[in-house]
Amino acid sequence: MSSNSIGKIFSFSTWGESHGKAIGCLIDGVPSNIELNEKDIQPYLDLRKPGQSKYTTQRKEDDKVEILSGVFEGKTTGHPISLIIYNNDQRSKDYSDIKDKFRPGHADFTYWKKYGIRDYRGGGRSSARETAMRVAAGAVARKVIWKKIDNKVKITGALIQIGKSKINYDNWNEGNIHKNDFFCPDEKIIPIWQDLITQARKDGSSLGAIIEVRASGIPAGLGEPIYDKLDSDIAKALMTINAVKGVEIGNGFGSVNENGKTNVDEMSIKDGKPAFLSNNNGGILGGISSGQDIICRFVVKPTSSISTERKTIDINLQETTISTKGRHDPCVGIRAVPVGEAMIATTIADHILRFL
Amino acid sequence: MSSNSIGKIFSFSTWGESHGKAIGCLIDGVPSNIELNEKDIQPYLDLRKPGQSKYTTQRKEDDKVEILSGVFEGKTTGHPISLIIYNNDQRSKDYSDIKDKFRPGHADFTYWKKYGIRDYRGGGRSSARETAMRVAAGAVARKVIWKKIDNKVKITGALIQIGKSKINYDNWNEGNIHKNDFFCPDEKIIPIWQDLITQARKDGSSLGAIIEVRASGIPAGLGEPIYDKLDSDIAKALMTINAVKGVEIGNGFGSVNENGKTNVDEMSIKDGKPAFLSNNNGGILGGISSGQDIICRFVVKPTSSISTERKTIDINLQETTISTKGRHDPCVGIRAVPVGEAMIATTIADHILRFL
Amino acid sequence: MSSNSIGKIFSFSTWGESHGKAIGCLIDGVPSNIELNEKDIQPYLDLRKPGQSKYTTQRKEDDKVEILSGVFEGKTTGHPISLIIYNNDQRSKDYSDIKDKFRPGHADFTYWKKYGIRDYRGGGRSSARETAMRVAAGAVARKVIWKKIDNKVKITGALIQIGKSKINYDNWNEGNIHKNDFFCPDEKIIPIWQDLITQARKDGSSLGAIIEVRASGIPAGLGEPIYDKLDSDIAKALMTINAVKGVEIGNGFGSVNENGKTNVDEMSIKDGKPAFLSNNNGGILGGISSGQDIICRFVVKPTSSISTERKTIDINLQETTISTKGRHDPCVGIRAVPVGEAMIATTIADHILRFL
Amino acid sequence: MSSNSIGKIFSFSTWGESHGKAIGCLIDGVPSNIELNEKDIQPYLDLRKPGQSKYTTQRKEDDKVEILSGVFEGKTTGHPISLIIYNNDQRSKDYSDIKDKFRPGHADFTYWKKYGIRDYRGGGRSSARETAMRVAAGAVARKVIWKKIDNKVKITGALIQIGKSKINYDNWNEGNIHKNDFFCPDEKIIPIWQDLITQARKDGSSLGAIIEVRASGIPAGLGEPIYDKLDSDIAKALMTINAVKGVEIGNGFGSVNENGKTNVDEMSIKDGKPAFLSNNNGGILGGISSGQDIICRFVVKPTSSISTERKTIDINLQETTISTKGRHDPCVGIRAVPVGEAMIATTIADHILRFL
Repeated sequence: MSSNSIGKIFSFSTWGESHGKAIGCLIDGVPSNIELNEKDIQPYLDLRKPGQSKYTTQRKEDDKVEILSGVFEGKTTGHPISLIIYNNDQRSKDYSDIKDKFRPGHADFTYWKKYGIRDYRGGGRSSARETAMRVAAGAVARKVIWKKIDNKVKITGALIQIGKSKINYDNWNEGNIHKNDFFCPDEKIIPIWQDLITQARKDGSSLGAIIEVRASGIPAGLGEPIYDKLDSDIAKALMTINAVKGVEIGNGFGSVNENGKTNVDEMSIKDGKPAFLSNNNGGILGGISSGQDIICRFVVKPTSSISTERKTIDINLQETTISTKGRHDPCVGIRAVPVGEAMIATTIADHILRFL
Repeated sequence: MSSNSIGKIFSFSTWGESHGKAIGCLIDGVPSNIELNEKDIQPYLDLRKPGQSKYTTQRKEDDKVEILSGVFEGKTTGHPISLIIYNNDQRSKDYSDIKDKFRPGHADFTYWKKYGIRDYRGGGRSSARETAMRVAAGAVARKVIWKKIDNKVKITGALIQIGKSKINYDNWNEGNIHKNDFFCPDEKIIPIWQDLITQARKDGSSLGAIIEVRASGIPAGLGEPIYDKLDSDIAKALMTINAVKGVEIGNGFGSVNENGKTNVDEMSIKDGKPAFLSNNNGGILGGISSGQDIICRFVVKPTSSISTERKTIDINLQETTISTKGRHDPCVGIRAVPVGEAMIATTIADHILRFL
Repeated sequence: MSSNSIGKIFSFSTWGESHGKAIGCLIDGVPSNIELNEKDIQPYLDLRKPGQSKYTTQRKEDDKVEILSGVFEGKTTGHPISLIIYNNDQRSKDYSDIKDKFRPGHADFTYWKKYGIRDYRGGGRSSARETAMRVAAGAVARKVIWKKIDNKVKITGALIQIGKSKINYDNWNEGNIHKNDFFCPDEKIIPIWQDLITQARKDGSSLGAIIEVRASGIPAGLGEPIYDKLDSDIAKALMTINAVKGVEIGNGFGSVNENGKTNVDEMSIKDGKPAFLSNNNGGILGGISSGQDIICRFVVKPTSSISTERKTIDINLQETTISTKGRHDPCVGIRAVPVGEAMIATTIADHILRFL
Repeated sequence: MSSNSIGKIFSFSTWGESHGKAIGCLIDGVPSNIELNEKDIQPYLDLRKPGQSKYTTQRKEDDKVEILSGVFEGKTTGHPISLIIYNNDQRSKDYSDIKDKFRPGHADFTYWKKYGIRDYRGGGRSSARETAMRVAAGAVARKVIWKKIDNKVKITGALIQIGKSKINYDNWNEGNIHKNDFFCPDEKIIPIWQDLITQARKDGSSLGAIIEVRASGIPAGLGEPIYDKLDSDIAKALMTINAVKGVEIGNGFGSVNENGKTNVDEMSIKDGKPAFLSNNNGGILGGISSGQDIICRFVVKPTSSISTERKTIDINLQETTISTKGRHDPCVGIRAVPVGEAMIATTIADHILRFL
């Protein structure tokens, strides 16, 4: 019932604040006898951690994960897996300039209305730092999926749009995704995106982005009518990510440009097995996976912390202004790619354990 | 834990198949001492029920709801409220032509893969007929909201796009919504939509649609970090509706066309109270309501049941074709408007009871 | 989350009041393709229904169950199973004498404190009439268990004590249980119990009872550490039954009379398989089934509705007295036997579906 | 959904093994703005920790708790509270003698059957060491209760029976409970219990015990019909404690010795308020608190780890014998007293947050 938990069988809970002692994740429902150690998790964290390129924040966090429980002699025991990452620098820097102000576009005002207290250091609980633990949970989820289904299952996120600049799908090359600073499958667009980010920084502004996640090798039958449909659980999971304002499956909002004849995915038999002639539905029909690739997208709004001065108010209900110093992501959507991947992995792992 | 239930405090479960004896809804978590009878629910059902205009299906269902429990002497008792609607005509017509075929775009294939059995009569459990009970639950949710917050709270759905034809927001007149067959706030677009629907029918095709739901009068503070955010619960709730393929909040996917300067909702003080200079975030910040109007949209794909012949396969894995006879909605998005409203109402009621 | 629901995978919810239109049960999590019809359920209901002997209440209820959903062509579909029993006589008799009084020992006072409203007709929601639907759920649970494990699994309840009169375990004959009016395995004690009940009626009083439920054929491995142990779920399930005030597993409270040497269940190998030399732990070790018979007991307090006048108060906080007219059970524990059996069946079915 | 979690609103999850790096607890649902630091929790842990008297185990664990999240500037923030206790000595001693043997009466055999792997060092996850974190959660629960209700609420556990030796209730003096090594309210029985423990040790055996927990100052109205009754949640909570085999409320199993006339708690008006003339129902009617003291008891079986040799088998299905060396509790029921208290505190806190 905890609102800091997600998942029914494969479930995880996160805890911790951006400037507290540590952040952590408690994963339950992992079957026993799966090989697991920190090396299975760390590479995914390294993809998300700050300071990896000049196009993301320059802050430094090692994000070294430690497994505290649930693994014995290198294998999962079926008991809860507790993960911890100590925060490098938990000493509060000088927050006096923002201590009493609500940063617009952030959760500052709403947390204050809800709780009457807030940890103003870097957003506290509402900081995107929390998403590091989702990435860790996602790494464990992949191990579950590979054990239960097949280690050829792939869950891959990619950045497909920054600002108004969208990739050309014809240039999609999955091999490119981890060869640039943007998780971008279209190498031709990289110079444009580099310029966009550089310009946004100069302007004291920021940019939004769209991420696409594809999962291949997923069997038909995942998802639970009526209210735990695979797509509704995916929508929820992605919408919990900081700054996400929209989610779509398959053709998504583009469906409205199709008609019944063009949008229906016709079926045939191929090699003696059911096959589809298209995948407008993104691999999910009636809330249940069809065996096709699962395809979904989500949009991340432009980073709200910008260096340009904006109007706001303070906790004494006085009007004031604020501008964000420090080294924020000019496009927080970039580092959201491994987070989106992770949320799809945990959602699929959860439904696999419900179904098998 | 039932996957046919949604909500934590205000929770409801639905049951029943399109051609079974009845469909029903079990609502729990309704506080005691709220006046409630069938007349509070029926008007909402009448908005959704088939056969109301020539632009929706011509089937006939009375959709008369009956309260079986949880109300005593006209008031709720705090105990579960059981609602039932008997299906007018549960006798199976001749389904021999579709009994063994999978209708493409529907859940037929995936249900068969998951369950190994399916009620082929009109989709059985996967039929949109189930959404009638959501509308009923939404009516009860409104009573809860009005009692707990204020009876000036309004939750209003509107159709804003059919196919590629989108309303002009400048023509938005809420008073129009219930004066046409499309739940449309822009009266000028009505003739165009009438033509679109008529043409789609002639073409043996169908159209998609986008619905916008706005909730006003909602207090700040609703939503539970991190995984029961108000927007993630809304995303899940809307994505459970049949044929929905995308959900967005505030600017949604349009956020990607903004930048940090234009997208942030600046704050000021108005009449001594916190105020926002814009509502790009759709009334939700950090997953918690800000006190502004909550604004969300969802897309409904073109109806999959069309009279044009499509390729498909049957349960014996033979290739075949199918075309849908009968009187299906040419644009199922129209009747989805009251359903979307209802899902927002139940989600908000749930979060109000968690918060207050 | 509904508090009128129990179970995680095999879960059911009940609804309805003793004198409302109907009572019902919504079961979710039943796997598809299990044969099920009303005849699988009715015999269990007939064991619990009132008016079966002169030692229980003389009220008449047919308790005819009807399946409204979730079954197609005689088999379960994997979708929610809605069951309904219409109340024979929902017209309110004259309740003016008890309308405003709190019956001591009942939930009248506490419901009034909690809800500020109560259905005073026969206890409303707090009536033991609700347990009919548990018995129905239990019948469905048995079908699940038999399908998933083995149709030789047996779950058998028996009355082992009325008042201070306890059976002699040496006389235990399971074949007797359904041959007398008390679900008693010891035929020698029947005349004594008949006299006890007759005397309690004459005295305007009532008697308590202890029920034992045994489940055989249950595999090792059911139960989930740490907080969903099989025995803790059994304890909860049995304690939800009206008038139950204690639950124990295996030696239970008698364990305190043993010591470490005598109480430990030693192990050996028999026919090449693990075997136990005793079953003091009632088939559950560390919250997980051991493969031995599961043995548990619960106590039902003496019926609170008696014809002897008792002191109480009314809703106007005036002192008064009350005595119960009408035909109440002199020992409500008798009809609790099939209810206890059912709760064990549903709990085991739930854990089987979690484990397999 | 995690089976390592308990509670719906005030919920907590525990993790960790007896000989792993650490054990921990994640508490969610704690309202904001409650003063909390380690000093609020440590005293309760000190009551449970080993090595406090010669009548319990001589092992040494500091059990120093650390708060890792959810508290800011000395106050709760409304976000998850992560607690950790590092295990003093996580190096494995030589377990070769028990590595492959199933200790009878323990979870060794059942964990092996369920998971196919087990942490054999001191029981791993099934060790009573896990209960330390329950005690910590209980301390936080008390702060919630005191804040929400009244700091005069008291939840007090006491040992009332060791082996066959039961206290005399006439000698009950609450002030004695923390003045002896047994949490015993009856000082006269102390010498007898000292002899019993000493003798059990000499005999290479162990003893069972019964604990009573009373909660006073609890308002009427806590508990949720039908399946989250206060007493069924208490039964579940207590039955999750290691070695507990029975739970009862009020008169409990003793109810069977009463009759309807004597067992009903008659009501009157005292000082203008509802009052009861007795408390046979232990403060709970129809599953809802009545405003009287809540009284419950649970039995802890004799410690299964004894130095006398017992028959058992090993993982190769060979018969063997086992005797427990080391410093085990001769009566594990003693240290279960603060654990039982804690489980009542967390259960009550959970229901208070649901009700208020």
